[in-house]
Amino acid sequence: MLEFADIETAAARLKGVAHYTPILTSTTLDKMLDCSVYMKAENFQRMGAFKFRGGFNSVAVLAPEIRAKGVVAFSSGNHAQAVALAAQLHGVSATIVMPSDAPPTKIEATRGYGADVVLYDRYTEDRAAISARIASEKGCVLIPPFDYLPVMAGQGTCGLEIARDVANLDALIVCTGGGGFLSGCTIAMKALQPRVKCFGAEPEAGNDVAQSLARGEIVSIDVPKTICDGQQTQAVGKLPFEVIRDHVSGVLTADDDAVIAAMRFAFERLKIVLEPSGACALATLFEHRSQFKNQRVAVTLSGGNIDIVRFSALLNR
Amino acid sequence: MLEFADIETAAARLKGVAHYTPILTSTTLDKMLDCSVYMKAENFQRMGAFKFRGGFNSVAVLAPEIRAKGVVAFSSGNHAQAVALAAQLHGVSATIVMPSDAPPTKIEATRGYGADVVLYDRYTEDRAAISARIASEKGCVLIPPFDYLPVMAGQGTCGLEIARDVANLDALIVCTGGGGFLSGCTIAMKALQPRVKCFGAEPEAGNDVAQSLARGEIVSIDVPKTICDGQQTQAVGKLPFEVIRDHVSGVLTADDDAVIAAMRFAFERLKIVLEPSGACALATLFEHRSQFKNQRVAVTLSGGNIDIVRFSALLNR
Repeated sequence: MLEFADIETAAARLKGVAHYTPILTSTTLDKMLDCSVYMKAENFQRMGAFKFRGGFNSVAVLAPEIRAKGVVAFSSGNHAQAVALAAQLHGVSATIVMPSDAPPTKIEATRGYGADVVLYDRYTEDRAAISARIASEKGCVLIPPFDYLPVMAGQGTCGLEIARDVANLDALIVCTGGGGFLSGCTIAMKALQPRVKCFGAEPEAGNDVAQSLARGEIVSIDVPKTICDGQQTQAVGKLPFEVIRDHVSGVLTADDDAVIAAMRFAFERLKIVLEPSGACALATLFEHRSQFKNQRVAVTLSGGNIDIVRFSALLNR
Repeated sequence: MLEFADIETAAARLKGVAHYTPILTSTTLDKMLDCSVYMKAENFQRMGAFKFRGGFNSVAVLAPEIRAKGVVAFSSGNHAQAVALAAQLHGVSATIVMPSDAPPTKIEATRGYGADVVLYDRYTEDRAAISARIASEKGCVLIPPFDYLPVMAGQGTCGLEIARDVANLDALIVCTGGGGFLSGCTIAMKALQPRVKCFGAEPEAGNDVAQSLARGEIVSIDVPKTICDGQQTQAVGKLPFEVIRDHVSGVLTADDDAVIAAMRFAFERLKIVLEPSGACALATLFEHRSQFKNQRVAVTLSGGNIDIVRFSALLNR
């Protein structure tokens, strides 16, 4: 299982490479929600999301002679850019397997970090098989998006920073898809502030982690219909679930309208840009505020990678 | 003339009240522009713009028995909200004279800070006369937006923070309309880092400060047609101009397209929201990059008060 020492080691690797992102506060928000809210602004992280932490740590842990062969990852989202940038910073090649109908801006951004992008047809081809074949041919390592200890340890450095920067918290809410971020942040928080209750945050339409926690075993669902594209995973990872099952107090959900309301609040009052999944934890706090009355609550603002056309369409709908 | 000691006194008043805003940096931007850019994020200031500094200082300087009678200001923009919030924080009343066709969101925001809003018809009525009559009737003080030493000293605290936080600067670029912000920041910067060249930043269509500096006297222009609504002043203030004439090295301009490009860069890469005038200084750096090659340049990101409808329309045009 993931251990706190792994997260401390990851933090040492990330020092001076990842941004130590700020904690944002808002008097207006605290009045609205009747609690003290501490928002960890991972939208200001390198490449725009927390995923950089896990991606970088995963490339950094490799032995130099293995790393020299390059790395492979499959992702249509932030993990792709995270691994691409991490490889570039280590001076090694990255091959990213992306669906051919991914937004051109994401494909361009991934190429912008120096990666080779291999496109596949998501309706007829299996990205895991393609990635495994490339890894085998090149003799290089495949970096999975969440079910992987170095990724979980890297994401956990975000929780470590929160736990160090905000004393006497009552609760921590972390958005979750595959569970890498939630499990990493939970282990870090429990190590430094053991009495803090840790919660996951999911889109209502894709509440598989909530179901899994309630059932005590991993529940798989169909690809959920939600604007939260970073959380359309069908099942939580095995390694993250071990942590979540033992240490997470609950998983909160928010529907897409609540997510948009949180994105709007961030735009209008905080003057920051959040992608839908990046606003999910804040949205669940909006929806479940009565549960946190008078508490000191940290939430992750996990990413800000969204283009202006989609952003406008969502906020004006 | 404005003196550095006035700015230090204002900073002491603002301590713990105004936000000490962060300096943002971007590796991508530095590569694009071939210089080191330090961006002072005043869009994160209270009420969303640097104007809070001057508004608060102007209310704070008043003798308690004068202040108790309340304050008056006229503005269609950020100065209105700044004075309203400053009065609210001092527990006194504020009357803000605003044009009846001002955006409803701005009128609501000003009322939201507890102010009485008096509407006037901008085509048939004189807002200065209305404001003076209200001040006279109530026996209270009118707080002008820029041509006023306590406002200039308050705005200068932003320059003080930049000068303290970023060593060995070569240049500082501050957006300017009436000149309060530019003059205050210039006095602070020259006191702490005398060799730094200070520049104003104006929309190209409203380059009256550039003209005034070139002519050595204040030049008045028609209301300029620009998206930079915070900089549609027709002439720089007399007190700010004394400082600008003696200490400012030049005034740079950017057209509306360059301002939109800077807003877009801020959205896509910095994940922050800037209003057009808030992006003007960065836009001038985009346009005049060759002048700053290999230099250490600070720019103000002066405000982020813009609604999503207008923001979308500007960035999608």
